[in-house]
Amino acid sequence: MRILGIDPGYDRLGIAILEKALNGKTSVLFSECFTTDRSNEHFMRLRAICERVGHVIHEWAPELLAIEMLYFSKNQKTALQVAEARGALLAICASHGLKVREFQPAEIKIAMTGYGKADKRAVFDMVTRLIKLPHETTSDDEIDAIAVAITASVTK
Amino acid sequence: MRILGIDPGYDRLGIAILEKALNGKTSVLFSECFTTDRSNEHFMRLRAICERVGHVIHEWAPELLAIEMLYFSKNQKTALQVAEARGALLAICASHGLKVREFQPAEIKIAMTGYGKADKRAVFDMVTRLIKLPHETTSDDEIDAIAVAITASVTK
Repeated sequence: MRILGIDPGYDRLGIAILEKALNGKTSVLFSECFTTDRSNEHFMRLRAICERVGHVIHEWAPELLAIEMLYFSKNQKTALQVAEARGALLAICASHGLKVREFQPAEIKIAMTGYGKADKRAVFDMVTRLIKLPHETTSDDEIDAIAVAITASVTK
Repeated sequence: MRILGIDPGYDRLGIAILEKALNGKTSVLFSECFTTDRSNEHFMRLRAICERVGHVIHEWAPELLAIEMLYFSKNQKTALQVAEARGALLAICASHGLKVREFQPAEIKIAMTGYGKADKRAVFDMVTRLIKLPHETTSDDEIDAIAVAITASVTK
């Protein structure tokens, strides 16, 4: 079972592929923080996100998308941009036949740390403690993508 | 030259196909107000939107998508849902190779009525006066989809 974990974003997008083997062992096969080029026009940036995720799906063949739900933001412009990116991602995953599970930020925090109001640092520490990463990272987006994929793997 | 006009929405989505013939004559080949099933889960509703628009693209082969930009809304939940639908639509059109032009609501109003703060009624009246519709409609969403397609056809 391979899970595509996504931390949705417009400037920066966390992408991860988690594999849960038949023996129950979970490993991260791939993770990255993908960034879009700020000098490009809006539509081209959404397209770059879709092409990147389409490429990852093609390469790793996940069956399930695990993605964070949107929370309300004080910055409405940012919130709308992230929402558009998220809609584009859901569409691209649907067109590749992936199943979808959406998680509230608090659900992910509870799955990772046992506490729904855990801060980013606590989630970061638990992810790096629970699972070996394919490379070292300091990217919150990448860690959040792994965290949502782990959440999908440990919850029903 | 065929233009796909879309008034982006989540509950209701306006879709139109406008044709600009070589002799300059413009006609509406197709228009509808597509609604998503409120009893379906969020992701399935986005998928229904993508499938419907994918079907329209397949049937009418437009070269260009003309779509309204988002404006800020007091109802942030609605704004985020529409943004997700809009992102999904941009992604599906990009994956079919359509070019994209995005218009501010005021640009559409100016193109249709000459006045950037025209109300819905004025836009509705001008659309139905300017162009013969394939069927009678009372749907603002459908009319707005035609209006954004006309805007793309008359502006550079």
